Amino acid sequence: MKLWQKATGSKKEVEQFTIGRDPEFDVILAPFDVLGSMAHANMLAKIGLLTSEENEILQKGLKEIYFEIEQGKFSIAEGVEDVHSQVEFLLTERYGEVGKKLHSGRSRNDQVLVDLKLYYRAAIREIVEDALELFDLLISLSEKHKNDLMPGYTHTQLAMPSSFGLWFGSFAEGLTEDFGMLKAAFDLSNKNPLGSAAGYGSSFPLDRTLTTELLGFADLHHNVINAQNSRGKTEKTLAFAMAGMASTLNRLATDVCLFMNQHFAFITFPDDLTTGSSIMPHKKNPDVFELIRSKTNQVQGISTTVGYMLTNMSTGYHRDLQLLKEEIFPGIETLKSCLTMTTFMLKSIKVRQNILQDPFYKHLFSVEVVNELVLNGVPFRDAYKQVGLEIEAGQFAPKQDQLNHTHEGSIGNLCLKEIIEKMKSATKSFDFEKIDQRILDLLK
Amino acid sequence: MKLWQKATGSKKEVEQFTIGRDPEFDVILAPFDVLGSMAHANMLAKIGLLTSEENEILQKGLKEIYFEIEQGKFSIAEGVEDVHSQVEFLLTERYGEVGKKLHSGRSRNDQVLVDLKLYYRAAIREIVEDALELFDLLISLSEKHKNDLMPGYTHTQLAMPSSFGLWFGSFAEGLTEDFGMLKAAFDLSNKNPLGSAAGYGSSFPLDRTLTTELLGFADLHHNVINAQNSRGKTEKTLAFAMAGMASTLNRLATDVCLFMNQHFAFITFPDDLTTGSSIMPHKKNPDVFELIRSKTNQVQGISTTVGYMLTNMSTGYHRDLQLLKEEIFPGIETLKSCLTMTTFMLKSIKVRQNILQDPFYKHLFSVEVVNELVLNGVPFRDAYKQVGLEIEAGQFAPKQDQLNHTHEGSIGNLCLKEIIEKMKSATKSFDFEKIDQRILDLLK
Amino acid sequence: MKLWQKATGSKKEVEQFTIGRDPEFDVILAPFDVLGSMAHANMLAKIGLLTSEENEILQKGLKEIYFEIEQGKFSIAEGVEDVHSQVEFLLTERYGEVGKKLHSGRSRNDQVLVDLKLYYRAAIREIVEDALELFDLLISLSEKHKNDLMPGYTHTQLAMPSSFGLWFGSFAEGLTEDFGMLKAAFDLSNKNPLGSAAGYGSSFPLDRTLTTELLGFADLHHNVINAQNSRGKTEKTLAFAMAGMASTLNRLATDVCLFMNQHFAFITFPDDLTTGSSIMPHKKNPDVFELIRSKTNQVQGISTTVGYMLTNMSTGYHRDLQLLKEEIFPGIETLKSCLTMTTFMLKSIKVRQNILQDPFYKHLFSVEVVNELVLNGVPFRDAYKQVGLEIEAGQFAPKQDQLNHTHEGSIGNLCLKEIIEKMKSATKSFDFEKIDQRILDLLK
Amino acid sequence: MKLWQKATGSKKEVEQFTIGRDPEFDVILAPFDVLGSMAHANMLAKIGLLTSEENEILQKGLKEIYFEIEQGKFSIAEGVEDVHSQVEFLLTERYGEVGKKLHSGRSRNDQVLVDLKLYYRAAIREIVEDALELFDLLISLSEKHKNDLMPGYTHTQLAMPSSFGLWFGSFAEGLTEDFGMLKAAFDLSNKNPLGSAAGYGSSFPLDRTLTTELLGFADLHHNVINAQNSRGKTEKTLAFAMAGMASTLNRLATDVCLFMNQHFAFITFPDDLTTGSSIMPHKKNPDVFELIRSKTNQVQGISTTVGYMLTNMSTGYHRDLQLLKEEIFPGIETLKSCLTMTTFMLKSIKVRQNILQDPFYKHLFSVEVVNELVLNGVPFRDAYKQVGLEIEAGQFAPKQDQLNHTHEGSIGNLCLKEIIEKMKSATKSFDFEKIDQRILDLLK
Repeated sequence: MKLWQKATGSKKEVEQFTIGRDPEFDVILAPFDVLGSMAHANMLAKIGLLTSEENEILQKGLKEIYFEIEQGKFSIAEGVEDVHSQVEFLLTERYGEVGKKLHSGRSRNDQVLVDLKLYYRAAIREIVEDALELFDLLISLSEKHKNDLMPGYTHTQLAMPSSFGLWFGSFAEGLTEDFGMLKAAFDLSNKNPLGSAAGYGSSFPLDRTLTTELLGFADLHHNVINAQNSRGKTEKTLAFAMAGMASTLNRLATDVCLFMNQHFAFITFPDDLTTGSSIMPHKKNPDVFELIRSKTNQVQGISTTVGYMLTNMSTGYHRDLQLLKEEIFPGIETLKSCLTMTTFMLKSIKVRQNILQDPFYKHLFSVEVVNELVLNGVPFRDAYKQVGLEIEAGQFAPKQDQLNHTHEGSIGNLCLKEIIEKMKSATKSFDFEKIDQRILDLLK
Repeated sequence: MKLWQKATGSKKEVEQFTIGRDPEFDVILAPFDVLGSMAHANMLAKIGLLTSEENEILQKGLKEIYFEIEQGKFSIAEGVEDVHSQVEFLLTERYGEVGKKLHSGRSRNDQVLVDLKLYYRAAIREIVEDALELFDLLISLSEKHKNDLMPGYTHTQLAMPSSFGLWFGSFAEGLTEDFGMLKAAFDLSNKNPLGSAAGYGSSFPLDRTLTTELLGFADLHHNVINAQNSRGKTEKTLAFAMAGMASTLNRLATDVCLFMNQHFAFITFPDDLTTGSSIMPHKKNPDVFELIRSKTNQVQGISTTVGYMLTNMSTGYHRDLQLLKEEIFPGIETLKSCLTMTTFMLKSIKVRQNILQDPFYKHLFSVEVVNELVLNGVPFRDAYKQVGLEIEAGQFAPKQDQLNHTHEGSIGNLCLKEIIEKMKSATKSFDFEKIDQRILDLLK
Repeated sequence: MKLWQKATGSKKEVEQFTIGRDPEFDVILAPFDVLGSMAHANMLAKIGLLTSEENEILQKGLKEIYFEIEQGKFSIAEGVEDVHSQVEFLLTERYGEVGKKLHSGRSRNDQVLVDLKLYYRAAIREIVEDALELFDLLISLSEKHKNDLMPGYTHTQLAMPSSFGLWFGSFAEGLTEDFGMLKAAFDLSNKNPLGSAAGYGSSFPLDRTLTTELLGFADLHHNVINAQNSRGKTEKTLAFAMAGMASTLNRLATDVCLFMNQHFAFITFPDDLTTGSSIMPHKKNPDVFELIRSKTNQVQGISTTVGYMLTNMSTGYHRDLQLLKEEIFPGIETLKSCLTMTTFMLKSIKVRQNILQDPFYKHLFSVEVVNELVLNGVPFRDAYKQVGLEIEAGQFAPKQDQLNHTHEGSIGNLCLKEIIEKMKSATKSFDFEKIDQRILDLLK
Repeated sequence: MKLWQKATGSKKEVEQFTIGRDPEFDVILAPFDVLGSMAHANMLAKIGLLTSEENEILQKGLKEIYFEIEQGKFSIAEGVEDVHSQVEFLLTERYGEVGKKLHSGRSRNDQVLVDLKLYYRAAIREIVEDALELFDLLISLSEKHKNDLMPGYTHTQLAMPSSFGLWFGSFAEGLTEDFGMLKAAFDLSNKNPLGSAAGYGSSFPLDRTLTTELLGFADLHHNVINAQNSRGKTEKTLAFAMAGMASTLNRLATDVCLFMNQHFAFITFPDDLTTGSSIMPHKKNPDVFELIRSKTNQVQGISTTVGYMLTNMSTGYHRDLQLLKEEIFPGIETLKSCLTMTTFMLKSIKVRQNILQDPFYKHLFSVEVVNELVLNGVPFRDAYKQVGLEIEAGQFAPKQDQLNHTHEGSIGNLCLKEIIEKMKSATKSFDFEKIDQRILDLLK
């Protein structure tokens, strides 16, 4: 049943096809829908479309529903079209006609848009928190393994000495940089679309600045067409941001699968975190990291699908946009699971010691020896020639246990403090505290 | 010929296949390569790997080459491998052995990385400037046409009154929001990778903070592996940012092609900006906007190709990365041409007047009339019913020439000032002036 | 619990992460898994690894399970890892030790591969059948509306006379052409991978030609590595084929949304197949076609995600491949729903009559008039000039109700018979009857 | 200058933007344009729109131009819009008014479509030929190295014995399977669009079956709208087919880069086919294969960009389609270069002998030993346990030099003959000979 239904209903086939997976997603949106309605009602009261008594009743009723949702007591009744209708039905059932006044000056278009924005804002925060947990672990692994050397590769060929400290640290700093796009997605999610109605505004004297403040948005989409067009743009930007972070995890997972290969054998995980075979004792399948690699590829694919849905489309709402949820909502869960499982696994990683002391790796040190000669005054081309001749004569025998890398970001100077500072600054820019405060104010 | 060549050269076929389109792109990178070398030489002098006399010679020689590039007098000689080699050859040819000292403490990997970062930084600035020109035009068109009403569509169906002021303004505000991802791409481009060498740092006591300052970078990639891994990540982020702005232009072009269709006939362009036919006088083909639509799709496709190139790849430089230039460099030019051609065309747009006064559009005003009744105290459901009955009885005859939309961002209150402020603030965050000053200091 | 489990189990978190949505997909694969096992057991008996008594027991047991699946009585018990294990458990529970002999000469890799191939083969058949139903409807609509003229557009501009007969017919012929890629995907699905074991074959003297015949495969992947590598390639090819058909539906849906727009108003659907508004009687939202447009974009996006999962990956099984199911399985259902809903909707389409008789469209006939003059002997350039002058003078008044298009595939000669023949021939090439016969033989 | 120009020309900026890279691509299309015109003129003569004398002149003139193109003497003159115009100008210049009659019954839309189809048909043939050369080499390498064992991996973990014969052979069979989609693309390219005019046919009594036969097309797009819609569909299908073959090469290149890594060290190439360093003698960078890997990713990306260009677009020609050439034409060259360079490189590959005799690999043989016991009558579970205990006790010492794999497609039975047969059959299906004959007939 639809709130706005005419006599003629839709055919069963149409109903089923158009509703799709919405019931599943609407449960996720429910608390945000209630918050949006609370702000909207407060605003209606301020501009005189609700009396303050009516608003008090609505605030009370909406708060009740909010806490029912939190306690898992909320569901969308059989035959009710969506979360918006369910909330309005509950209000009307419990408090009478006033429930029907809530929708004045609002369209389903801006209502669902504000729900989505609030949800994305919260989802990005969860991604940030999961990423911070991984970040902290990477920093501590980098510190712990700062003296554990390993080979560095270029062209997948042995190239230069590296270290596990450097390797872990690279992903930590990489995550700080992934926050740039995530912040761009957050900023788009943190703009108020309420009051744009069906995308062309309305003749009610809405106070859009008020709802912006009540919901803790940093800003509003001023232009109402642009507010509507932000549906799709927000999702696409979020898809890009998630793809960025997914790429970082993808590389980490790719490295892990390679380093667990028996030819490398640089790292191991406990038996109960890998799968093996009793007659192939060397085999430790890195299933979790293979799945992280694959899932991060799924996440990267989302932006293309979203792009197809949006391109070559004219201004204004199209029902097409409904399906963005099918791409983004599961994508958020997938990315979060990749973050938390990477953290879960890396807590148990074991790193092989003294890898580079094997003569197999001696040529990795040739550049070191050349540089040392240069620092002692030998011209570069001469130093290079001298080492080349030693190698050719089979007489090259460098020390393979220590390095003297001192510059910023090198093996001997990992700059973890600076990287931690970057992450603090990146995280602070989201200003989650302000949002928390506003939501608490609304619910108090 | 290669600077680092062993006796055995590469087979002709290999040479040709591996060099690809690099000569074409290297010319673009040339000025940035010289700037990077100037900063590097200053740093080598500071840490004692060059005498101050040597550095003075190098600075002089590099400045000469820089201005030769600016004057179009620079080219990569036949047989010289790349821009890096050409610069080094010129220096050595003109100033002797000191030219060979320039490469100490640097690898071709971090050298080209710094070239690319400086180029992307400059390219993003050009995109920003082209976008600002379009933005200014959109703002003035929005102001000019604020009273020209047009229909607003949802589901591609006539829905509500809208205006050209609203329509133009929506793209203006849209552009301000596209700057978010562009800034994220800029921030990644504005980090110094120099000193990361082949991706694992070096045993020279490089002062990476110094080159960061000299080149006007806002920060450095501290971790050297992360610096190397930023190759690819920077391009991908830039590809995403370009895709975002391309989407905004794509929608504008899609709207224009629709509104030029004879059934709509809302807008026209002068004959010399469209193509037509003398026996089909109604036909004005919007070729430019169709090509903008198509080119913005090309730009959107780039991020997928870049994504394929990077995914499932282990840490460290791979030659694969060389081909990122083939995707990104032309993509930048494509996006810029879409921006400038949109501006060029919109300067001549003509908008049809009084569209909504046609009775064809009268039902667009039904919501207006309902809202007016509500504002005069009639309960919403009653007002809705009353208007519905009038329509059914064929007696609905609203005023079709004026609207009373007053809230923020609506037809009667476009908030152009607020949108201009957003754009100023977005643009200021790039801090181009600081970069200009540092580059001037380097070249003075 | 796993059949091949060592003492050490997997951590709960790992178990949950790695199992993913497999239980849901395994139910789909169940009947195919049983068929694969029946063929495998027959083959083992032939090469002497099972006695004929053992094989008879297995065939009996497997048939029982097959029919239980058909009757919806099969499920994967709590704690059982997957469909393969569940089938083996049931056999062993019911018939003892012989159940454990079934897995000789087979790996889980080639077992699941054969399941997938059989499922894809069946799924493609369902797509073919759904497409044929739509095809038949399009042909009959084309025939029915062969005299209903409409405008033809180029550059979204009015260009030439067209007809609904032509328009419906274009999608009919388009579908025949989509069968080309679908057949390529079918051919890949219709090759036997059984016997490739983990991707490197085995030392058992398997008779792979026998299982190929028993399962009605047209061929086998001979090379066992290639058989394993076909996992991924098959899915990618299927994704491409689905994208092709999705594009055809996407264009149809795009046209419908445009033609339902009130400016065009060429077609309508009954009220219960669209959504509207009682105060906006002109509005008939084409939600179903908007969702078809959006869903066909989802289908098109699949190949990119699949591409990310597969590219830059070395030879051999990777756990990554497991997630292909999450992309392909729902994609198949989505495409099928788009096919059936397009059919469902088009059954009720109403076409406006006599559109082109409106003087609004008179210039569409200018080329007709020119051509008529040419056919009567006037040189083309002269005829063109003459018509141009008439138009300029406002004296152009062509007959707007009839056309004399007679060549193959034109308005007056739709060639529906030829198009039907193409479809018959395309469909016949799948040779579904042979497959049916073989599966019946296996089950009898 | 344009053949169909009105008094008002286009602005310089518009001209430049719309012409894009067409001059470069038009040179490629030139010979096909001439062939299409020859067939068209013959047809016009048959239906009486040209006299046989006029047609003879046109055939003579067109043949002259064809051979000028072949000899590199053709170019598009400054100021001439495109290849179609240049050919018409030349004819008119040389043979007078008859040149202007050539365009009757044809639009630029179907003219360029037929050019593109003929070009794609030829390009696919070149891809087939390049692929066949690689195929032959892979077959001979497989035969040559059939006894050279190597490890087989699953999960990038050592798993089972494999062989170079198997590995090379897997790509050979893979290529045969890539021909399936290539054939689907060829079939779409091998359909005649001529006579569809601007996409809605014409009132001339064209004989489309005649031009179909003259140009050696296997069929025609009957429905003229569908003919026009095949622009885009053909390119997309070709992009998919190229992506398929690119994936096969991508995997081969990925394997090569891995197997050249020093930990594996399974294969080598001569020094002049790799790049190295005199102080890092172990380093042999596989630049060519890294670039093949990257270029095959570029090729895979094309279909996404093409998808963006086409989706959500209504029926009928859009100028957007022009840019498909920018994606497809270079993509064809890229794929061909990847095929020929793979062949070039593999001609020099050196394979390490006796890899598996190293005790490092002994556990790879555990499954072999289990299977041997089973074949000698030991129940599988007992055999498995027995071998597991030996391994645990450190007493497992299998023979590591021989295998007894005999089934179809396994190490000992590579089925190269069957694979060669598949390739023959796949190639034959293109029926290039018929096309050759028809083109020769046209030109004689």
